[in-house]
Amino acid sequence: MTQQNKRRQALELIRANLADENLITDTAGLRPYECDGLTAIREMPWAVALPQSEAQVIAILRICKEHHIPVVPRGAGTGLSGGARPNQDGLVLGLSKMDRIIEVDPLNCVARLQPGVRNLAISEAASEFGLYYAPDPSSQIACSIGGNVAENSGGVHCLKYGLTVHNVLGVRVVTSDGDTLELGGALYDTPGLDLLAVLNGSEGMLGIITEVTVALLPKPEQVVVMLAAFHTIEDAGKAVTNIIGQGIIPAGMEMMDQLAIQAAEQFAHAGYPQNAAAILLIELDGGAQEVENLCRQVERLVQASNAYHIDTATDEKEQMRLWKGRKSAFPAVGRISPDYYCMDGTIPRRQITHVLASIEEFSKEYGLRVANVFHAGDGNLHPLILFDANQPGELAAAEEMGGRILELCVAVGGTVTGEHGVGVEKLNQMCVQFNASELEQFFALKHAWDPHGLLNPGKGIPTLTRCGELGGMHVRHGEIAFPDIERF
Amino acid sequence: MTQQNKRRQALELIRANLADENLITDTAGLRPYECDGLTAIREMPWAVALPQSEAQVIAILRICKEHHIPVVPRGAGTGLSGGARPNQDGLVLGLSKMDRIIEVDPLNCVARLQPGVRNLAISEAASEFGLYYAPDPSSQIACSIGGNVAENSGGVHCLKYGLTVHNVLGVRVVTSDGDTLELGGALYDTPGLDLLAVLNGSEGMLGIITEVTVALLPKPEQVVVMLAAFHTIEDAGKAVTNIIGQGIIPAGMEMMDQLAIQAAEQFAHAGYPQNAAAILLIELDGGAQEVENLCRQVERLVQASNAYHIDTATDEKEQMRLWKGRKSAFPAVGRISPDYYCMDGTIPRRQITHVLASIEEFSKEYGLRVANVFHAGDGNLHPLILFDANQPGELAAAEEMGGRILELCVAVGGTVTGEHGVGVEKLNQMCVQFNASELEQFFALKHAWDPHGLLNPGKGIPTLTRCGELGGMHVRHGEIAFPDIERF
Repeated sequence: MTQQNKRRQALELIRANLADENLITDTAGLRPYECDGLTAIREMPWAVALPQSEAQVIAILRICKEHHIPVVPRGAGTGLSGGARPNQDGLVLGLSKMDRIIEVDPLNCVARLQPGVRNLAISEAASEFGLYYAPDPSSQIACSIGGNVAENSGGVHCLKYGLTVHNVLGVRVVTSDGDTLELGGALYDTPGLDLLAVLNGSEGMLGIITEVTVALLPKPEQVVVMLAAFHTIEDAGKAVTNIIGQGIIPAGMEMMDQLAIQAAEQFAHAGYPQNAAAILLIELDGGAQEVENLCRQVERLVQASNAYHIDTATDEKEQMRLWKGRKSAFPAVGRISPDYYCMDGTIPRRQITHVLASIEEFSKEYGLRVANVFHAGDGNLHPLILFDANQPGELAAAEEMGGRILELCVAVGGTVTGEHGVGVEKLNQMCVQFNASELEQFFALKHAWDPHGLLNPGKGIPTLTRCGELGGMHVRHGEIAFPDIERF
Repeated sequence: MTQQNKRRQALELIRANLADENLITDTAGLRPYECDGLTAIREMPWAVALPQSEAQVIAILRICKEHHIPVVPRGAGTGLSGGARPNQDGLVLGLSKMDRIIEVDPLNCVARLQPGVRNLAISEAASEFGLYYAPDPSSQIACSIGGNVAENSGGVHCLKYGLTVHNVLGVRVVTSDGDTLELGGALYDTPGLDLLAVLNGSEGMLGIITEVTVALLPKPEQVVVMLAAFHTIEDAGKAVTNIIGQGIIPAGMEMMDQLAIQAAEQFAHAGYPQNAAAILLIELDGGAQEVENLCRQVERLVQASNAYHIDTATDEKEQMRLWKGRKSAFPAVGRISPDYYCMDGTIPRRQITHVLASIEEFSKEYGLRVANVFHAGDGNLHPLILFDANQPGELAAAEEMGGRILELCVAVGGTVTGEHGVGVEKLNQMCVQFNASELEQFFALKHAWDPHGLLNPGKGIPTLTRCGELGGMHVRHGEIAFPDIERF
């Protein structure tokens, strides 16, 4: 049979397993699936399947394996690193129609969910029991729990409550062979190798998630949001390390620098002090008395770090006002510059002052402005490098400067990505972060799950050849030692 | 070269890399390494190596790979499931001499440790900064952090603060090829597949841990220990689910039944009410005001579950008295019965009442007494089945009854092991817990790390043949589908 006939046959077999409207092959219908939230990188898929049950997922994966068709899983398509960018000869497997909340169990504080359930819908369903689901990506209205698991998503409240991996108790996953595995469950500790943790952040490279069990937390009795303004970035950085160093873990602790403050204030009118060199937004939660005590301690600590202005919001409306500036910071920066390049690196907290000072030096060196808006509490930086793609050389300069920022993150003991995943966007940076042995180990695990390399090929892990070409690669024992990995 | 000469050569090569006293080959010297804390299962090793540096670990692993010599890593030898039981043709690689605390970093709240550092020594070193390391296995005076990572150890305080995997931020690990990998680090979120989580609980099957970075927590301002006594087990079980269902996560919540209470009281004189059908020991920690509030809430909740006696200890001496009975429960039960068989299963909390009632029925059916002492908060049961091995049939009856308890744990949505690891002890139970596809996936991962099967062979994962013989195995697609796994 020709390759084309084989593909036609595969399509017919897939069609036989799905309702008509759930297999898309026409150009107009495929267009919305061309990219995810990383819209700069696009590719038209061969076809899109939207299964409504685990049985359909199993059938589709068996057909794809039989016919050697790559499969690109997709949640809500809100990812920022291109993890769901299609392959032109591959099937996009969209999980959005598997969106049922199977069970909310308030006694065990868990919920069982199909993968397409939206992040915010979990907390809405748990609300009647006084519970909520903690990880809160900024896309939480739209993004789905299956995608959250695939990217190990973060959010403002992950400082205190952990990333997705710390809040997921179990998954059901279908392998590329069409086998179903149950990993973890509604329990704390489970025997065997921790395959559940591997699924978190595996970016669709290992299996298709068909069910997720998450932990629910009690809604805090009291919440307070505090804004603290500083005359220098150094003082703001010191305040962060002083607070954490005292053993206080706020629910969230965000930092913005002057350019970000001014852009956000003009856009959102949140009442930020526009002359501050940096502000911190600190959310404290817990029992009423506990929060009152924490508030006093944090106030004392930010004052000891030379905060010159403190604004404490105890009612919800005021809290929403303070958060509004932070939450609209990215579009606000988009208004003051034709283009910006958003970095996503993580550093040890005690390095914040040093790294921000170095970024300012880079900024002068390259003549490009930088707005810093980031999760200061867990050291996850999002420097936005402002540039104008219409000015010759500015894009290249922004990219080079971005590269130097990420190398600095690694040099001070940090990482080249925080919460957005690797996808296709950060493959080059992975060559800087990991040596050949470490990348080989990633590929060995990928191969153990997906021996034919059909699940989300080309994502998440750079090939050693790619890294070798970049020159950023430690070569092991004088040779690239895993010759057959190129096929992934 | 004959096999014997090859082995002799390997020994000389290992000897060349170590100080004289760090390679043991004489019978008297090998004897202490014959077993770990599971003393019933013993085997004399071929040799014992005690490296003092990562470079020595690398050299030894390369020699063993070259000469096809199995390697059994060993921490402090306190494990309860035989994970460090030697192989007669294998090298025991003891990490006890790599016991340096490399760094305590109070600003980032982390400590970097060699694998042989004792669990309690971490908290002792962090104490001057007001910090401590939370996971506290009952062997914490002796057990080491490398072994804790290998077994993903638990402890009383893991209810609130998580298991080892939740408190380890990074490891350095040497693979069976002698390559060094850095997984995780002093940061919250790191890119790539979560190999760090896989190392936690991998029981020495994937690599040799040469460095561990752990998170440190601030010591709580206030601690209270509460004893609540109940006339029925059902009421005690209800109190557990009521407390957790209200979103209160105590630092620890332990349950003991009447037989365990009486044995412990006679042994430790902790002041337990000897007629209680069950007691709960509940530890609450946090800020002073928070703990006072929690205390009131928990008191109300246990009263609502018909607690007839409550004893609250606020000073350290009284708290140690209350804990003393619980901590000596195992030796205390050892005094009232010639033998006991300690089970280790985990169930969803809401099933506690049902499972304990079923265990009591089993107890009547088999005519064997059971003492229950367990981590009620996270549903981790340790039923102790009392028997006399000198009475014909009693050992067999105890084993059969134990098997039925574990099957019940699985049937209600639980697992066949909690915190002790699988080792060699629970290989059969893994056949009940996992289907063939799931076990294959464990083996595929094992193979990806250790293609020659030299690291701790025969531990942690049962072969499909073993499971098939037990009859507890789901066979996949009508066949056992991974024929070459037998060599592990």
